[in-house]
Amino acid sequence: YGKNTIKFLRLHREGKKHFVKEVEVCAHLRLTSPQEYLDGNNSLVIPTDTIKNIVLVLAKKNGIPSLEQFAIDICNHFMTTFCQVAYVKAYVQEVPWQRLHEDGVPHIHSFICVPDGIRFCEAEQCRNGPLIVFAGIKDLKLMKTTQSGFEGFYKNEHTTLPERHDRILCGELFCKWSYGECKDFDFNCIWKKIRECILEAFAGPPDCGEYSPSYQKTVNCIQMLVLSRVSQVQVIEVILNNTFYNVVDMKNLGLTNDKEVLVPVEAPYGSCACTLGRKKFFEA
Amino acid sequence: YGKNTIKFLRLHREGKKHFVKEVEVCAHLRLTSPQEYLDGNNSLVIPTDTIKNIVLVLAKKNGIPSLEQFAIDICNHFMTTFCQVAYVKAYVQEVPWQRLHEDGVPHIHSFICVPDGIRFCEAEQCRNGPLIVFAGIKDLKLMKTTQSGFEGFYKNEHTTLPERHDRILCGELFCKWSYGECKDFDFNCIWKKIRECILEAFAGPPDCGEYSPSYQKTVNCIQMLVLSRVSQVQVIEVILNNTFYNVVDMKNLGLTNDKEVLVPVEAPYGSCACTLGRKKFFEA
Amino acid sequence: YGKNTIKFLRLHREGKKHFVKEVEVCAHLRLTSPQEYLDGNNSLVIPTDTIKNIVLVLAKKNGIPSLEQFAIDICNHFMTTFCQVAYVKAYVQEVPWQRLHEDGVPHIHSFICVPDGIRFCEAEQCRNGPLIVFAGIKDLKLMKTTQSGFEGFYKNEHTTLPERHDRILCGELFCKWSYGECKDFDFNCIWKKIRECILEAFAGPPDCGEYSPSYQKTVNCIQMLVLSRVSQVQVIEVILNNTFYNVVDMKNLGLTNDKEVLVPVEAPYGSCACTLGRKKFFEA
Amino acid sequence: YGKNTIKFLRLHREGKKHFVKEVEVCAHLRLTSPQEYLDGNNSLVIPTDTIKNIVLVLAKKNGIPSLEQFAIDICNHFMTTFCQVAYVKAYVQEVPWQRLHEDGVPHIHSFICVPDGIRFCEAEQCRNGPLIVFAGIKDLKLMKTTQSGFEGFYKNEHTTLPERHDRILCGELFCKWSYGECKDFDFNCIWKKIRECILEAFAGPPDCGEYSPSYQKTVNCIQMLVLSRVSQVQVIEVILNNTFYNVVDMKNLGLTNDKEVLVPVEAPYGSCACTLGRKKFFEA
Repeated sequence: YGKNTIKFLRLHREGKKHFVKEVEVCAHLRLTSPQEYLDGNNSLVIPTDTIKNIVLVLAKKNGIPSLEQFAIDICNHFMTTFCQVAYVKAYVQEVPWQRLHEDGVPHIHSFICVPDGIRFCEAEQCRNGPLIVFAGIKDLKLMKTTQSGFEGFYKNEHTTLPERHDRILCGELFCKWSYGECKDFDFNCIWKKIRECILEAFAGPPDCGEYSPSYQKTVNCIQMLVLSRVSQVQVIEVILNNTFYNVVDMKNLGLTNDKEVLVPVEAPYGSCACTLGRKKFFEA
Repeated sequence: YGKNTIKFLRLHREGKKHFVKEVEVCAHLRLTSPQEYLDGNNSLVIPTDTIKNIVLVLAKKNGIPSLEQFAIDICNHFMTTFCQVAYVKAYVQEVPWQRLHEDGVPHIHSFICVPDGIRFCEAEQCRNGPLIVFAGIKDLKLMKTTQSGFEGFYKNEHTTLPERHDRILCGELFCKWSYGECKDFDFNCIWKKIRECILEAFAGPPDCGEYSPSYQKTVNCIQMLVLSRVSQVQVIEVILNNTFYNVVDMKNLGLTNDKEVLVPVEAPYGSCACTLGRKKFFEA
Repeated sequence: YGKNTIKFLRLHREGKKHFVKEVEVCAHLRLTSPQEYLDGNNSLVIPTDTIKNIVLVLAKKNGIPSLEQFAIDICNHFMTTFCQVAYVKAYVQEVPWQRLHEDGVPHIHSFICVPDGIRFCEAEQCRNGPLIVFAGIKDLKLMKTTQSGFEGFYKNEHTTLPERHDRILCGELFCKWSYGECKDFDFNCIWKKIRECILEAFAGPPDCGEYSPSYQKTVNCIQMLVLSRVSQVQVIEVILNNTFYNVVDMKNLGLTNDKEVLVPVEAPYGSCACTLGRKKFFEA
Repeated sequence: YGKNTIKFLRLHREGKKHFVKEVEVCAHLRLTSPQEYLDGNNSLVIPTDTIKNIVLVLAKKNGIPSLEQFAIDICNHFMTTFCQVAYVKAYVQEVPWQRLHEDGVPHIHSFICVPDGIRFCEAEQCRNGPLIVFAGIKDLKLMKTTQSGFEGFYKNEHTTLPERHDRILCGELFCKWSYGECKDFDFNCIWKKIRECILEAFAGPPDCGEYSPSYQKTVNCIQMLVLSRVSQVQVIEVILNNTFYNVVDMKNLGLTNDKEVLVPVEAPYGSCACTLGRKKFFEA
């Protein structure tokens, strides 16, 4: 029980300069005994209202140096304080406020919301078990207008899709990775580096791109690049929800449409998901 | 790979009387070899476009006698037809069209959308494994305006919640259950019976209700009633996402508010989830 | 200024039987002087927090006998209390809670949310002007699976649509009407009657339906029926946002699809809107 | 009738460099005769399918040099081609694709979606009337963490809001302006300039900001700055939907919260709207 969407803003001031971190926190707990379900005995139940208070107090006391550190703080607090807690999971998601700039000059207390990929993290712990930390990015929408195709696939009597060697690749990315033994990582720095890897693997070199033979292969390229460049990542999961674009047939309208006008197809959309670890390989 | 939100409407006619079933289908596949991820070799890949065609062809040929039977048909088709498929999952969700009535007379071809709980199901199968069928209801919003409280909970220095023995219990229910060995069940009839159990366990007797000491206990009551009344259900999972209602303090405004005017609190909201089986007990 | 989405629940008890009315209220004000915009002088500004308090106090004192009466109460209060208010508009929308029934027996305090058409109303008044009351229904989704076509339309070189005399008509309806001089109307009763008119005009007789030659004609039929049956309605506006359903061509798949499997087309969708009064005629 | 949400992507190539413009177009028509509503006579009705074809053909032939020019093209086409059209309105909204950069180098064919304020425009024309062009920005979320207050407002027995001279100002902006006689404006350049004015007026100087005594005054400042800097703008409408942030009272929890931890209040939220022209003044 105990999911708890707690939204708040943590304001930090250094002189006249302000820093904001607005987050949404969900905390899940599992207790050692199921008595509140079976008997309606609430004596060990920590009310969600108390959970909310604790999260706000931790934000006040510790600040939010990184989402990951804050999620770790929450897990530690519940494990240390409540012996009836058998398991705790803390999910933290950020509202993407960026400092406003006027003619290149950063503003001391004004911000703009720029949702080009949402940062999140998760920390979880079983009593007597290790603390596991995940981080990720979601709602990252990318498009490449060429250097993508889909050919040589399996065909039977239900196949109507033609082969294509030059199509638009467009989709929404979800990436989530786990860290190994959590030492003193610079979570903010690693997150930025991984975001750059994702963009680079998706797009290829700026002057020519790189051909993608399928969504699956692009997903794999992203995973391989992150694992090769960022040693702290143990396992990485990537989900790519594709939007297809159909070239509009304009023959009836007396025109030749050389992939200039395309219509997005909202549903059915495809999705491909893959989880890749350092030694083992899962596919889902 | 291969999630695929396929939306379509299956129209069935008996003389002048029409029957509609509008559904949203997602099909997931896992292939025996990951070569398309690693090498970009697509030779075994069944395009999502082909998956869509197969789903539509099955709907045309078999109709949709029940969501569950349709999901089973999809799984069977992929397992039987494609030896490269190692795993298949089919999710089917219904658009809640109900026949229109005029002065109590059913209309032969007119329908109204009544989203008071969405029916869905899921069937999944690994090669050489059993076919497993789940069914469920989601987005079912219920409220009781009394016979609910929350007392005797754990307290410490972060507790600010007062004890309450008469509050509003309001939430959105998600229930999902699994069937055991799938014989010739009447899935439509069972689903209706379970929906009635949920409402009865939530509300209690019409003339007096039944006191709920916590969300957790209400969740457990729903599970116990379904398991006792519907023998085909093996395991049942229930998630209750609560909306809290605060009694507005009107003392400053010179009025006594006897729980007459309440304000819903959108976030933080609580959630409690529990999975209950016939012999074993999980709590999540 | 002063729009203000105020959500609350008004609970009314008669012995052990409970009645709920959960609403969302927006109140707009215009002041006689624009000084707060020009000079930043706030001395006449009624804070939105005060507006919220007033709405809650009125709900506590007067209850909500009908949405319309409550909107009228709000307008009256602001006009009477604040001489700096030049114009007030109150919009009230209902959360569609319905009493739960068990085996046909109504429950005394349990409710289920059934969003099959949302009721709303609006009252507005300029100082020294009349009080004008509107009411309406929105998010009402209807479908008829035959007795609808579209033929004989204008054609030119950009026309690719074929003529059809048997298609699915499906759409989301928005209706809003105004009352004339507001006497002691039974707003609840009138609203129910108009809802029935809409369903009847959309669907036609239960045993055979009625042919619709276009969305526009169906919109007009709804308006005509309401105006002829409900004398209190002065002007009625109807907007119908259509969802198109395409019959899937299965020739390539070796099947004849006799309008049995259809796919909804999400965008582009059509919309037709018409406003019809007792004497004059507007079209938009 | 004839609203028509048409989504498409226009791809333009210059050598290997690609440019994308993905838009959503709505076209409204009013015909000279209401016969299709009254008689079901469709002979003058231009099907929404034809409207869609026309929009796509115009995109193919003319490209989309600016949203405004494309909306003008649509209006011109309908007025010139169809004598039964009495009025036409074209609304065009952009999907905010931005060119991807790797280490500062622009990519030739890869893009990222950055929704930090959505650009839109509208052109409308009555037969024999002038062509009127509007442009705007919406869904622009801004925040300043200080230099905002609300004091000296009107008080009575329903007032519970305390005066505040240092609060967070956060809101979603909607701005829409009209151009006068449409000559050969550089619409893209003007739009960027207005966006900068909005940010500057909202935030004030980067090193100190500027005090806002109310949302209304901030709205007015934005309008005044745009009108003074951009001579092509005739009338400007601004709507600011505020999110309030409450400082969490932590006294019960033994802590002093110096505006460090704040909780957003989702509803009720306030809104203030104002329309300002060059000579006249409206307030709504």
